[in-house]
Amino acid sequence: MSHECLFCRIARGEIACHAVYEGDAILAFLDIHPIRPGHTLIIPREHYPWFEDLSATVATDITTLAQRLARNLKAIYRVERVAMVYAGMHVRHVHAHVVPIHHAHDITSASYLKDGLDGFSMPPSPPAQELEETAKELRERLAPRAP
Amino acid sequence: MSHECLFCRIARGEIACHAVYEGDAILAFLDIHPIRPGHTLIIPREHYPWFEDLSATVATDITTLAQRLARNLKAIYRVERVAMVYAGMHVRHVHAHVVPIHHAHDITSASYLKDGLDGFSMPPSPPAQELEETAKELRERLAPRAP
Repeated sequence: MSHECLFCRIARGEIACHAVYEGDAILAFLDIHPIRPGHTLIIPREHYPWFEDLSATVATDITTLAQRLARNLKAIYRVERVAMVYAGMHVRHVHAHVVPIHHAHDITSASYLKDGLDGFSMPPSPPAQELEETAKELRERLAPRAP
Repeated sequence: MSHECLFCRIARGEIACHAVYEGDAILAFLDIHPIRPGHTLIIPREHYPWFEDLSATVATDITTLAQRLARNLKAIYRVERVAMVYAGMHVRHVHAHVVPIHHAHDITSASYLKDGLDGFSMPPSPPAQELEETAKELRERLAPRAP
């Protein structure tokens, strides 16, 4: 079954992304409207709308990658906390947000609320080069080590 | 090693909670400052500060329960989306929030922002009886079925 959703197209390589990790069943790439630098999305390659639709295997793959990412984001950005969030907003292809937390309201995110409760404002998109530098650093940290 | 954190004490039964599920390794109970009715916290009984500290087994137990909860919260509250969030706020004993989403800003949560960015306001605590009714319904739905 072919799916025309944005994240299916990214998973098939039809739309470019700043990839952070590419596995057989899952893929991680930078959110182009990051709450904070390093804000990453992890998706299954297969299309499932909601997190409760994930098989235990794929859900565990996502959590394990989010844990590795969290450790690396803490090392890079020197934050105490990293959040992992399945919110289900905007794209109905399950995606876990992994976000370095610098401020108590990074998740209860003031940056999404700039247009008030009736809107849903997007944080500005950093220049592609800046995103690519961040993605490269994370990619190198998450790549399997040579034996 | 004994831990005096709030969630360790709840896990040991020293502080009461509105339990939703009690397993060997994990426990779920209602958030007493819920963003929305049914807002549940899932914790490991053992003390780990952050979600990246969880073993794959316990992390998977938590996700699987969150998935079951999400399906049940959708049935009860007739919402399209349920969020699962490891935010790491307030209590440094890893806890996953599971929240029925009624409004786009339930997670980017306006209710936590009532005192502005410098504060972190808590949604009001519903009467204990109301919480207990919610907990009872969820407990019955999540209990293992008799053979």
